[in-house]
Amino acid sequence: MTDGLRAAVASGRLRTGARLPATRLLAGELGVSRGVVVDAYQRLIDEGLAAARTGAGTTIIARPRVRDSASDRRRSLDTLRLPLPPADGIDFDLSPGVPDLSAFPRTAWLRAERAVLDGITAADLGYGDPGGAPWLRAELAGWLARTRGVRAEPDDVIVVGGVAQALALLARTLHAAGRSRVAVEDPGSRGARDQLAHWGVRPEPVPVDAEGLVVGELTQDAAVLTPAHQYPTGVVLSPARRRALLAWATSGDRLIVEDDYDAEHRYDRAPVAALQGSGPDEVAYAGSVSKSLAPGMRLGWLIAPRRLQAELLTAKHDSDLGNPALPQLVLARLLATGDYERHLRTVRGRQRRRRDALIEGLRRHLPDASVTGVAAGLHLMVTVSSDISDISLAERAAGHGVLVHPLSWHRHRPGPPGLILGYAAHPPDRLTEAAKRLGEALSRPGQLSRPGR
Amino acid sequence: MTDGLRAAVASGRLRTGARLPATRLLAGELGVSRGVVVDAYQRLIDEGLAAARTGAGTTIIARPRVRDSASDRRRSLDTLRLPLPPADGIDFDLSPGVPDLSAFPRTAWLRAERAVLDGITAADLGYGDPGGAPWLRAELAGWLARTRGVRAEPDDVIVVGGVAQALALLARTLHAAGRSRVAVEDPGSRGARDQLAHWGVRPEPVPVDAEGLVVGELTQDAAVLTPAHQYPTGVVLSPARRRALLAWATSGDRLIVEDDYDAEHRYDRAPVAALQGSGPDEVAYAGSVSKSLAPGMRLGWLIAPRRLQAELLTAKHDSDLGNPALPQLVLARLLATGDYERHLRTVRGRQRRRRDALIEGLRRHLPDASVTGVAAGLHLMVTVSSDISDISLAERAAGHGVLVHPLSWHRHRPGPPGLILGYAAHPPDRLTEAAKRLGEALSRPGQLSRPGR
Repeated sequence: MTDGLRAAVASGRLRTGARLPATRLLAGELGVSRGVVVDAYQRLIDEGLAAARTGAGTTIIARPRVRDSASDRRRSLDTLRLPLPPADGIDFDLSPGVPDLSAFPRTAWLRAERAVLDGITAADLGYGDPGGAPWLRAELAGWLARTRGVRAEPDDVIVVGGVAQALALLARTLHAAGRSRVAVEDPGSRGARDQLAHWGVRPEPVPVDAEGLVVGELTQDAAVLTPAHQYPTGVVLSPARRRALLAWATSGDRLIVEDDYDAEHRYDRAPVAALQGSGPDEVAYAGSVSKSLAPGMRLGWLIAPRRLQAELLTAKHDSDLGNPALPQLVLARLLATGDYERHLRTVRGRQRRRRDALIEGLRRHLPDASVTGVAAGLHLMVTVSSDISDISLAERAAGHGVLVHPLSWHRHRPGPPGLILGYAAHPPDRLTEAAKRLGEALSRPGQLSRPGR
Repeated sequence: MTDGLRAAVASGRLRTGARLPATRLLAGELGVSRGVVVDAYQRLIDEGLAAARTGAGTTIIARPRVRDSASDRRRSLDTLRLPLPPADGIDFDLSPGVPDLSAFPRTAWLRAERAVLDGITAADLGYGDPGGAPWLRAELAGWLARTRGVRAEPDDVIVVGGVAQALALLARTLHAAGRSRVAVEDPGSRGARDQLAHWGVRPEPVPVDAEGLVVGELTQDAAVLTPAHQYPTGVVLSPARRRALLAWATSGDRLIVEDDYDAEHRYDRAPVAALQGSGPDEVAYAGSVSKSLAPGMRLGWLIAPRRLQAELLTAKHDSDLGNPALPQLVLARLLATGDYERHLRTVRGRQRRRRDALIEGLRRHLPDASVTGVAAGLHLMVTVSSDISDISLAERAAGHGVLVHPLSWHRHRPGPPGLILGYAAHPPDRLTEAAKRLGEALSRPGQLSRPGR
């Protein structure tokens, strides 16, 4: 029933602001006990989607954020305790995980699509290979080899509907094999955790420290992680940990799932190569164009150890027969012409300037804060020495019009406070201003409402 | 293991012509008993994917056809007994279920995509509603109301990756509710049957007669059918059966799944309205652009009774977060501008001329045959009074260079013989020639090889 209500909210059938029916009434209407309805409402409240006020019943206050493997934007009232101010009080939305959607390469995309449609054959538009268009699989194998050190033949690549679908397919395969205990990072993506749980595997949080996932604590059948730029802390998995992780996998026929969620956004140094290149028989590598083009593309890839590929292809086939053909061919062409690489270069330069503006602003306005996780990605992490929880700090920031994620939202177990700041969607001068506001918010502990409002 | 081999063949890793390793060798390599490998090979042979010859081992002879809910193109050697001649002996492929892919409206599609990209907002490209782009849902609700009598608000429409995904989502929902017995049509689509079985529900064949599905034989929790133009016989569900079916559903909280697979292709009379319009609380309506644009689009819709929608949305979300945004917006625009309707009108005229040419050719060259299922669709059915099985007739046709489907391929239980002829992909003069060849093939029972070859 909670799922039903949640989906009703997600679909907009229950809109923000809608009052839920009195529990007694709904229980009567559905022919269930009142306790069932009360529990369902409470779960919505726990998830931050609804709020109950004495005398006013239960009201929908937010739509569930669509979850992505490495960009969990959902908020929990049970950890947050107070709802954030409504969005119209927010001047700067620094939620992580959202690329600069205004940078979508419309001209190049359209040019490639015209060329694809000019040359397309009937076979291209028919029922295709469930693993994807051969051209795209070949281009991706080459591209990922060059840029990420991935070792794959074209046939090893399965084209999927984003990393979320890659996780769904892997979870089903693990579950079917009775290998249902899967380690996830803590802090980490709640989206990935929920995705795995939906398909019957048990996600078990394993701590992340300054070297990345604490490999010594792994006892599971598989581990899902973001080694090149941990989500959300930005930590890079250390060389010692990489070696330990691969040894862990080979010593017990365990699977490493590498979510390379922002592989395209590295700034200062050469990127760490993908783990998959060091262990193609141990690592299932997943990536997508969600951060390089747009999440709405729902286009990604999964390169799994060969022993798993047949089952994964069957699962993909029985889910949807395969990804849509046209966007696959357009991406293949963008890769082949170099337009994709050119686009990434442009965006990377822009993101670096944005990151630098935010770092500089924080240095000026929050001089005591420590900023980490800056080598790559679309967000960074700020830690301040404070007795106050990061949730309270985020509330203060919101009171000053800046929406940031407290690290606690992404944690399973308690840990040191932190704030996650996404910078991809804002030009430098706006980020400078956001840093100034943050400085005002966090350096005046007593002040919870925004000046002048 | 069979699944694994099948997927390896599907993906092209095991190519047509490839010799499978000796059973003893493979068993040793995989650490399984030889019987397991023998069984797996036998299943591939049963499915028509491999052939065993004494002294030559087992060889891959075909790739599995991708299955669609209403266009099963798979062939079984266990019913066919003899493999069809290789494709280069086939001059006319009259397999049903394939639209005229050369008619894809490239210009209109590209024009619409340009307009969409010009007006697109960041929100359109972000993580969207798992149920689909609001614009497309609204256009589809209006279009299906006008053309098919479907009763739906925009929020009732879930955008899916084709009817195959609609069936997958419904099967999961039925299975989760413990309603796992699902009636399917016999003859009917093997693709739909396999799709349902994969997701844990039990497809049970129920006979189709001259009035369509024999509703009196239904004992299941749900029924999947093609009421407007039965696949593959072309029968239209009679008014009495429609009423009986709806009464069956309401009397026991049962679900009707209406696969409206070729709703766009009706020729002589006004189309029968969708069942859904008469029973929106009993019918889950599914359709796609596979037959109107191309199967490779993987774009369809599911309109389910409201009590099921929340669960279906959750299932869609946890499968892939939703369909890709751009193609949804392009289709919405094609619907809004009338370009989609114009395209259908053009194609419909062309298909009618093709159908007429085939009917006329059959009348001339197979004067004793009876031709049915012609009011709609992309294929028709031919029955001849013959002592010979339709599989043998199809073999003879193949020997004369014409690939047709024997009705037996689509049957679960034995029944009267029939041949299914798809005409969408061939111009009239080619169809006339194909009919002539068929006449030669079927009127000379002794002759199994093609004259002059």
